[in-house]
Amino acid sequence: MATTTVRELYAHKENYLNKEVQINGWVRTLRSSKTFGFIELNDGTFFPNLQVVYDEGLSNYKEIAKLGAGSSISVSGQIVESPGAKQPFELKAAVIEIEGLAASDYPLQKKRHTFEYLRTIAHLRPRTNTFSAVFRVRSVAAYAIHKFFQERDFIYVQTPIITGSDAEGAGEMFRVTTLDFDKTPRNEKKEVDFTKDFFGKETNLTVSGQLEGESYCMAFNKIYTFGPTFRAENSNTPRHAAEFWMIEPEIAFADLSDNMKLAEDMLKFTINYVLEHCPEEMKFFNSFVDKALLERLGSIVNAEFGHITYSKAIEILKNSGERFEYPAEWGLDLQTEHERYITEKHFGRPVFVTDYPKEIKAFYMRMNDDDRTVAAMDLLVPGVGEIIGGSQREERLDHLEKRIDELGLNKEDYWWYLDLRKYGGARHAGFGLGFERLIMYLTGMTNIRDVISFPRTPKNAEF
Amino acid sequence: MATTTVRELYAHKENYLNKEVQINGWVRTLRSSKTFGFIELNDGTFFPNLQVVYDEGLSNYKEIAKLGAGSSISVSGQIVESPGAKQPFELKAAVIEIEGLAASDYPLQKKRHTFEYLRTIAHLRPRTNTFSAVFRVRSVAAYAIHKFFQERDFIYVQTPIITGSDAEGAGEMFRVTTLDFDKTPRNEKKEVDFTKDFFGKETNLTVSGQLEGESYCMAFNKIYTFGPTFRAENSNTPRHAAEFWMIEPEIAFADLSDNMKLAEDMLKFTINYVLEHCPEEMKFFNSFVDKALLERLGSIVNAEFGHITYSKAIEILKNSGERFEYPAEWGLDLQTEHERYITEKHFGRPVFVTDYPKEIKAFYMRMNDDDRTVAAMDLLVPGVGEIIGGSQREERLDHLEKRIDELGLNKEDYWWYLDLRKYGGARHAGFGLGFERLIMYLTGMTNIRDVISFPRTPKNAEF
Repeated sequence: MATTTVRELYAHKENYLNKEVQINGWVRTLRSSKTFGFIELNDGTFFPNLQVVYDEGLSNYKEIAKLGAGSSISVSGQIVESPGAKQPFELKAAVIEIEGLAASDYPLQKKRHTFEYLRTIAHLRPRTNTFSAVFRVRSVAAYAIHKFFQERDFIYVQTPIITGSDAEGAGEMFRVTTLDFDKTPRNEKKEVDFTKDFFGKETNLTVSGQLEGESYCMAFNKIYTFGPTFRAENSNTPRHAAEFWMIEPEIAFADLSDNMKLAEDMLKFTINYVLEHCPEEMKFFNSFVDKALLERLGSIVNAEFGHITYSKAIEILKNSGERFEYPAEWGLDLQTEHERYITEKHFGRPVFVTDYPKEIKAFYMRMNDDDRTVAAMDLLVPGVGEIIGGSQREERLDHLEKRIDELGLNKEDYWWYLDLRKYGGARHAGFGLGFERLIMYLTGMTNIRDVISFPRTPKNAEF
Repeated sequence: MATTTVRELYAHKENYLNKEVQINGWVRTLRSSKTFGFIELNDGTFFPNLQVVYDEGLSNYKEIAKLGAGSSISVSGQIVESPGAKQPFELKAAVIEIEGLAASDYPLQKKRHTFEYLRTIAHLRPRTNTFSAVFRVRSVAAYAIHKFFQERDFIYVQTPIITGSDAEGAGEMFRVTTLDFDKTPRNEKKEVDFTKDFFGKETNLTVSGQLEGESYCMAFNKIYTFGPTFRAENSNTPRHAAEFWMIEPEIAFADLSDNMKLAEDMLKFTINYVLEHCPEEMKFFNSFVDKALLERLGSIVNAEFGHITYSKAIEILKNSGERFEYPAEWGLDLQTEHERYITEKHFGRPVFVTDYPKEIKAFYMRMNDDDRTVAAMDLLVPGVGEIIGGSQREERLDHLEKRIDELGLNKEDYWWYLDLRKYGGARHAGFGLGFERLIMYLTGMTNIRDVISFPRTPKNAEF
């Protein structure tokens, strides 16, 4: 009799009906009478539980009947059709061995817990329905992204986490050091002597792998990164974490419209893949977290995404008659309220906004011929607003150097980045997708702390 | 006429022969006479180049004939059978557009460069044969690992990079901080006041995701991590980097033998996948980097891995008659010379060494009944020595607490890790595979700096 999994039982019911199996798992709930009882057993491989039926024929019946939620057991017995309508089959236990008892103060008893409370027991929360669903979707979505790019011959580049340059300019950074605060080495000017630090210079945690990714794009044509990135910003919002994962593809011989096509294809592929591979989880989210979820995702998958310039978007916002908290003015960044108006009310589907004023975008974005706007794109989706941001990159050495000068940046910091333009530069474009934002979008979860296994936020680095 | 890639041309030659195509890529070399010339064009998608033939019929013939290596071009023309034996077909250019010139000081001219020199231009080295092969293999191997685990219903867990605990005890750590060395906050005792730091406490870069991974294993049954890990060790060796990626699977209701089976299956799957998907690159490594590579990998894939206890290994080493630099004594760690003797000379194939003395292994490994050894396993492979290390974990709360006490560790630091034993603990086991070690093994490259895009080592965090 082979050990199998609940996922396998559900996938190939016909192979197991009236056969003997062994299943190992954890007791979610247990009900017992004098002579028989039921266990909802979850083995971690499948969202739904397996119903185990046992009776006083078990040699250890009394012990089993008292088992607390959370205990781990090994059950041998026969898979039989279930008389109840709730499940297609159940496991009639011949033997139940106790693997590990759960102490009686096990926090996950059968009652509702707030997400806030569950964050304090982040080591146990994946045992609940909600978090088991979240983290399976996260795993499957990560794989979908790899699969999408690998099947299209993109090279996965693992760009550095510790960086010696602050060239990205994307936000506040964490310092990485082995220097001692109590015995800090100093030079003659009494400044901290970072030549004595581990790397012989100041180093930080990366905020983006894009620039390094571009160098690989100029060798491999199509690349993507997928790794952790960091922001030392004191933002205590439901959408910000100090540590999060980003996906950053970069394509050569490509312009903004190729880039938008790639983003649209990737997003649709990932949503479809998750819908197909996590149907139980997605149904759960739709029932208990966000009743519009499946409809919204379904509409994205089938929609052709809209395209609009920033200038046109500002015009629409101004003429909308809506009262926004923040003004919509040419030259100012779009706020979430603006983004949501454009994608939800004006378009009713995902929309790319392109060609933003150069002042509100990064130095590396390609200057348009109007010399006022750059070839940037943000993808806005209903229910969220911006989910992807990208651009065509400035491949013209002289334009790029001019922009670096204009912004008062130091050209020497960018020597290798400029080399990419000097030596066979090519049109190229790319974008960044915050992985946690995607998971929030896929699950309907509204706090980023609830889609990261052990979230890091200001004043919080538990576990 | 659609733009296609060199990979696509090679994959479906029959679809393109005598058809018009457009290919974008970079000039590797160019030879020209008065009336015609040849370009070895690489478009980054495929290891071999595409031969482009052009002649004075081109409107910009003179300009093309002077193109320097590294320049990016766009070529339109017909795919024709090649009269030469070196390639199955070539592209007869009708139009060649210059996308971006390479300045004449382009460092990658057609001559041999040392790996040491190429590390100083890490942003350009993926354009060389060797590094294009290394980083494609790295990308494909990463995908193989995801595929292996996902197809077996493992959940991918992205464990935290910034950690507030130093509970792993696996080595020296990097501090992560936003405190200022010049204005360090102090408490009444004049100690650094880390409550004022970003996370309100001391934080470091993780050395392992294992402990967090175990908590997800106790929910999902089968999990793996795949992410960056860090060591602030001043080791300037060809095998150590300060930043590297690790794969750490963890399986529940499993013991050491299940764990060894998993490691063997994973390694064989990954090698097979890379051999199948990177045949050109692997042939290149076998010709130019390590002439025994394919034979060695082939023998691993077909070998049944050996199994031996540490105690038996010590006995074999003592009786070997070999002169080792370090003594082989029970209680001492095996050195690489010992490991290689065991796997290369004694077994002639990969071998798991198990049941090491508790003193030389981590606190969380499961104590054997002899109370002297723990259920650890190291996988040794010919040519390298240790490539995987793992163990069955101590699931018995009392044993684990006793071990923590014995080692003088602080139980409170492990409150959540102990909870996993208190609440439905189960037998479980796992291992760690250093991803760069695997890539070195797959490619024959002997310096870890040459399998990491932008390596981080003592005194070096360039790019």
